[in-house]
Amino acid sequence: MQSSAEPGAFSTKGEATRARIIQRALELAGNIGLESVSIGDLAQDLGLSKSGLFAHFRSKERLLLDVLEVAAEHFAARIFRPAVKKPRGEARLVALFELWLKQIYSRELPGGCVFMAGAFEWDDREGPVRERVVGHFKALHQTLAGAARISIDEKQFRADLDVDQFANELHAVLLKYHLEARLLRNRRALPHARRAFQRLLADARV
Amino acid sequence: MQSSAEPGAFSTKGEATRARIIQRALELAGNIGLESVSIGDLAQDLGLSKSGLFAHFRSKERLLLDVLEVAAEHFAARIFRPAVKKPRGEARLVALFELWLKQIYSRELPGGCVFMAGAFEWDDREGPVRERVVGHFKALHQTLAGAARISIDEKQFRADLDVDQFANELHAVLLKYHLEARLLRNRRALPHARRAFQRLLADARV
Repeated sequence: MQSSAEPGAFSTKGEATRARIIQRALELAGNIGLESVSIGDLAQDLGLSKSGLFAHFRSKERLLLDVLEVAAEHFAARIFRPAVKKPRGEARLVALFELWLKQIYSRELPGGCVFMAGAFEWDDREGPVRERVVGHFKALHQTLAGAARISIDEKQFRADLDVDQFANELHAVLLKYHLEARLLRNRRALPHARRAFQRLLADARV
Repeated sequence: MQSSAEPGAFSTKGEATRARIIQRALELAGNIGLESVSIGDLAQDLGLSKSGLFAHFRSKERLLLDVLEVAAEHFAARIFRPAVKKPRGEARLVALFELWLKQIYSRELPGGCVFMAGAFEWDDREGPVRERVVGHFKALHQTLAGAARISIDEKQFRADLDVDQFANELHAVLLKYHLEARLLRNRRALPHARRAFQRLLADARV
């Protein structure tokens, strides 16, 4: 999947404009939440007409879905694909964890994770945007549980480890780190997260 | 601190109206986020004029701060005060944990926790609303760390336990439960949370 967030990769002006709209919407969504992204504000911000912006996205829902798609690709490119190059087993899990922490901390996405913003905006609503956010978290879970399963296959983790429980607790550490690093700006956020992860690994090992 | 969310407790009509506005704003904020609460929509929703609503709250910021105050009182009344009646030590920690889970799951606040919504909306912004959200999470941390410290005093937890690390990991379990129960509607959310908590307790005990 190609990242639509890189305007240079597109041959036509229309595609470049579309990518520019998504990129700006992604930044806004991270800052103010997905639902608060307004087509009017976005158009003004980018010097486009509202109808010009609508020509690219038939609806706000379509725009939000495209924003989530770009965010998911960003996540895959910076966390999943580099981690999968590491040796199977615990080394890959450590890479996933460290790259994920780095991504949370880096502020490369200025407004923070749109999926986290979406998680608390969309928990009580229905529809395709909610389904996309849910799908993202389910995919994350499968990735973490899969990496734990490989660590069992490699005889690094005990055979009776509950990989769903492991993935659940690992994601809990990452959620808490997100809150501590970004909202609370706690200087101990990183050592806390790493210690929790070490405790989890210690309990999982053979 | 009296909960302004209970109109019956007020003697004047002005106070009752004010409480009604805050209650509705609290529901909306949980559903759509704090920042998305619009004074105009709120007034229309409650059959008040916009200027009438402004007479109660000089600014949207003042309204949001009052909403957070009521939410914090709700939290204290349903979690902290009942838990503190339990015996000192692990029993009190278990009560805190179980009441907190119940509160997340109960949907008593229809839109979910406004502090969680606020955490991801306000991480990159400054001002009194952000400070109030941060203050809430810091108070939660102190409560959890304090309950762990009491468990050390009671010789139930080991003397070398890092209570900040313990509180950090306990809150991580609760954050993850919030996501699993409310967004993902995972039927295993509760057993996952309880097992993670048991692992944390087991590591903390003497």
